[in-house]
Amino acid sequence: MTQYRLLLEYDGTEYHGWQLQPHARTLQQVLEAALATALRHPARLHAAGRTDAGVHALGQVATFRTDRGLDPCELRKSLNALTPPDIAIREVTAVAESFDPRRHATARIYEYRIWNQPWRSAFWHRFTWHVPRALDVRAMRTAAAALAGEHDFSAFRASDCESESRIRRVTHSGLTEAESLCTYRIQGNAFLKNMVRVIVGTLVAVGSGALYPEAMAEILASRDRRRAAATAPPQGLVLVAVCYD
Amino acid sequence: MTQYRLLLEYDGTEYHGWQLQPHARTLQQVLEAALATALRHPARLHAAGRTDAGVHALGQVATFRTDRGLDPCELRKSLNALTPPDIAIREVTAVAESFDPRRHATARIYEYRIWNQPWRSAFWHRFTWHVPRALDVRAMRTAAAALAGEHDFSAFRASDCESESRIRRVTHSGLTEAESLCTYRIQGNAFLKNMVRVIVGTLVAVGSGALYPEAMAEILASRDRRRAAATAPPQGLVLVAVCYD
Repeated sequence: MTQYRLLLEYDGTEYHGWQLQPHARTLQQVLEAALATALRHPARLHAAGRTDAGVHALGQVATFRTDRGLDPCELRKSLNALTPPDIAIREVTAVAESFDPRRHATARIYEYRIWNQPWRSAFWHRFTWHVPRALDVRAMRTAAAALAGEHDFSAFRASDCESESRIRRVTHSGLTEAESLCTYRIQGNAFLKNMVRVIVGTLVAVGSGALYPEAMAEILASRDRRRAAATAPPQGLVLVAVCYD
Repeated sequence: MTQYRLLLEYDGTEYHGWQLQPHARTLQQVLEAALATALRHPARLHAAGRTDAGVHALGQVATFRTDRGLDPCELRKSLNALTPPDIAIREVTAVAESFDPRRHATARIYEYRIWNQPWRSAFWHRFTWHVPRALDVRAMRTAAAALAGEHDFSAFRASDCESESRIRRVTHSGLTEAESLCTYRIQGNAFLKNMVRVIVGTLVAVGSGALYPEAMAEILASRDRRRAAATAPPQGLVLVAVCYD
């Protein structure tokens, strides 16, 4: 048996998220079907993280095992031919049998894009949250910076989040602006369910004046989900990269 | 009667081009249907240029007439609500009755995007031509520069192009590169049918070594369509702006 690692890019618009689900088209399902055709046997994919419905990836990592001898370059070619154009297989590499894409990840980088113009964008609507009122990006930057460090992120998670520990280490939390796009980038060792989207919802509340920038640190300290703002919609979110030592 | 001008952005992927066609979903059809609902009477749209199937626009201009008194801001809101998210109405403005969006245009700017990486892009596949072999962008720049000026562009047009005069004035023709995207930008007073796409096909032939950069000037001088390369696919092309005095 050899284990292989896939580096994947996808536009998640047309998928019900990563994970297998009965009666729904998911990334895992479409990719496992392509893999089964290419390998001529079924194979299970294990991903570094489960992206939600509508969420995208530039650098998702997933592994599978096979005892068929195969050429990684050929397999990459076959998989790209067997998947629709909103999925791209960037790399196929043989990895150690012991490699676990989820548990061995030392960091994950996410970006969230906001289209901040009165008019919506016909080009960016699949990849952005349209916020028509002008945002105070400086206030948002101050608020975003308050999240760096090791904290209990209980205030920023889905109500059905099942993680036992809510302590996460955020090593970067910042905003950049280019023309009408405002991009929030966060890097951390791991993330709670919906954590990035609840943070972004709260940052937009700061940017639109509903919250003071200082409220971010207070909400974090409260560990109370009800004090944070509503979860931002999925389509602005991209899993940019998963890092390994 | 008052004439109004729409500034339009669209992702052309799901449309059979701008122009009305029986049994096909076109931009003109979808926009005229929205307009008829908003105005409560049918109205004909006249565009600055007819984009082909799969071609996009950031700044298409189209006009219509109505004798209903209307507030441009309200109409913009209604039209954005009545159209799908791959169309955006950026501006609605009242213009002189004599204004003709096609004949009064003094210049048009197009961009064509090439995704130049061995792997395809799941994010950019709607807006780029995927050219997997590494392109020599310097050679393409030299070739592109040869098109600036007033020339007979007979070599760079569709075989069914019906324009009587093939003389056009190109004021800019250049390439920029950013990460894996190579963008060709051309500005001219007007364009022949498929002109930009035949130029891009020929530039890619230069970039991949099939033609010398100097061949561009020779092909232009020959006025022979058979000497230029195959037409580049539509999805890389964007009508960026139409200029008026």
